[in-house]
Amino acid sequence: MLPDEMRELRAISDRLRAAFEGAGYGEVWTPTVEYEEVLERGDQRAAGAGLRLFDGSGRVLVLRFDMTIPIARLVGARYRDAAVPIRLSYFAHSYRAVSRGQVQAREFLQAGIELIGAPGPEGEAEVVALVIEALSQAGLEEHRVGIGDGDLYRSLLADCGVLEKDRMPLLETLARRDLVGLGAQLSDLGIDGADLELLTSLPTMRGPAEILDRVDPRAGRAVENLRALNALLNKRGVGDRVLFDLGLVRELGYYSGAVFEVYDPAVGYAIGGGGRYDKLLGRFGRDLPACGIALDLQRIHAAGAAEERLDRESSK
Amino acid sequence: MLPDEMRELRAISDRLRAAFEGAGYGEVWTPTVEYEEVLERGDQRAAGAGLRLFDGSGRVLVLRFDMTIPIARLVGARYRDAAVPIRLSYFAHSYRAVSRGQVQAREFLQAGIELIGAPGPEGEAEVVALVIEALSQAGLEEHRVGIGDGDLYRSLLADCGVLEKDRMPLLETLARRDLVGLGAQLSDLGIDGADLELLTSLPTMRGPAEILDRVDPRAGRAVENLRALNALLNKRGVGDRVLFDLGLVRELGYYSGAVFEVYDPAVGYAIGGGGRYDKLLGRFGRDLPACGIALDLQRIHAAGAAEERLDRESSK
Repeated sequence: MLPDEMRELRAISDRLRAAFEGAGYGEVWTPTVEYEEVLERGDQRAAGAGLRLFDGSGRVLVLRFDMTIPIARLVGARYRDAAVPIRLSYFAHSYRAVSRGQVQAREFLQAGIELIGAPGPEGEAEVVALVIEALSQAGLEEHRVGIGDGDLYRSLLADCGVLEKDRMPLLETLARRDLVGLGAQLSDLGIDGADLELLTSLPTMRGPAEILDRVDPRAGRAVENLRALNALLNKRGVGDRVLFDLGLVRELGYYSGAVFEVYDPAVGYAIGGGGRYDKLLGRFGRDLPACGIALDLQRIHAAGAAEERLDRESSK
Repeated sequence: MLPDEMRELRAISDRLRAAFEGAGYGEVWTPTVEYEEVLERGDQRAAGAGLRLFDGSGRVLVLRFDMTIPIARLVGARYRDAAVPIRLSYFAHSYRAVSRGQVQAREFLQAGIELIGAPGPEGEAEVVALVIEALSQAGLEEHRVGIGDGDLYRSLLADCGVLEKDRMPLLETLARRDLVGLGAQLSDLGIDGADLELLTSLPTMRGPAEILDRVDPRAGRAVENLRALNALLNKRGVGDRVLFDLGLVRELGYYSGAVFEVYDPAVGYAIGGGGRYDKLLGRFGRDLPACGIALDLQRIHAAGAAEERLDRESSK
């Protein structure tokens, strides 16, 4: 990465950091390398996506693939008696293998916040609103946060009698937004009638809060949470910046409850994501509800450039 | 690393970065992971100190152990036609295995500059003076740069008839500043008389430029270079901040000519180091003289705190 790009990335980081610090989110740093057993305690499945290090002593090390699990470990070790909520932020590289067994790394610079000890929609609203505000301060104008519920689809699958072993392949298909494939997989499992209708239509529901009124009553608990979150976001003045997305599923297994995807219509990919992970901290010695969002700094940079390009074109 | 320390480290980085940018040193970034063959091309010996990654394809990857070799590769690839001198800076973590075969990493945050295409004492003076100035802006008051010649001792050993295979163990003993051990090793090799006197007394010569007048004429070329460098540093107003150290040897094998060690009397360890490496860039496709200095940000932070502590104690 050459000086011109670095200068712009530093400017974006500085503005995000100022916004996070201003809201009380102190920056922390954790080592690049973690013991594999630590990452697996956080998320058995995702640990396999990490880059492993040769080991002289028999313990396997992995380059961190996100900052949420290392921060959970840090909170268990260093914030054992701290008053809640604990507000932390980070600016750090994470690493994922491009594909399993390949060393080629995707190395990405993340900026993020974690709000620990603030349960339910109140905590989620704080995190979502701060990220929206911070991105505005970093120069974006069109960014949005998509909000879904990470438990919803999984629990509906259970309701419809899909066995646990069959659920993960379906969730993976859904995470790829492959609705045709999803329908075929569901049919193969013998799902039909109203259940098939529910499970194939729900992921298409995406839009402003009004869509929550049209959701099947079997999704009741999740919808109540999302309604409460929407009211809080309206109160914080960012209601027009969010949309609800009932097909949103995040890849990491530790999410429980609300999940977030940050995007910018100027580019065709997510620029960040996160959610609530109430069961993660307990595995590291401090059983607290938590939620957070991680942003990809290079993607924010690209989104800012794309917004400017679109602006110039539309003003021609 | 918790928020209070991070805030101070960020403040130090920001001030160093401003000083480097102000002098035209644009910041670059290279991947955390490099192919082992790239690092070995830069320094066969030091590559073994890196942390290795499991590899699916047969090529071995290593966590970078400094930024100089990755930047040499970057210059060969991305600055192939750029006008010289090229001025680059970096703020990045590097990694070394604590001992060979152990995965436990020492991960350290480095800030540094590389001046590429500026030969001889002129280039060295620019780098040393900028680092002294940048550290002053970052809040240090007592920092000094020790200056030696990385070729000097090696070539004197050759002059005195020490075989090439016997030189590395002697240089390693010297790098540890173990002068008793050095004398014993030299005697074991049959060195005596004036040669033994020269080889055991030279490493004790450490002080202001006047010591250069007392050096054995056999060290003539190196001393001439150091005298020229001293004159240029005086012209830049930092002559009182440097001392000459004829026993200074840097561990990495790519140094040729002047070598630097940055330290602060308030702490008992080096806070940075570097030197001239005129033969490294050619191995990556652009044969240019170069020199640079890397600083350890956490050690700068500790030195600043130690200076303040000493100040408080002496004013009691």
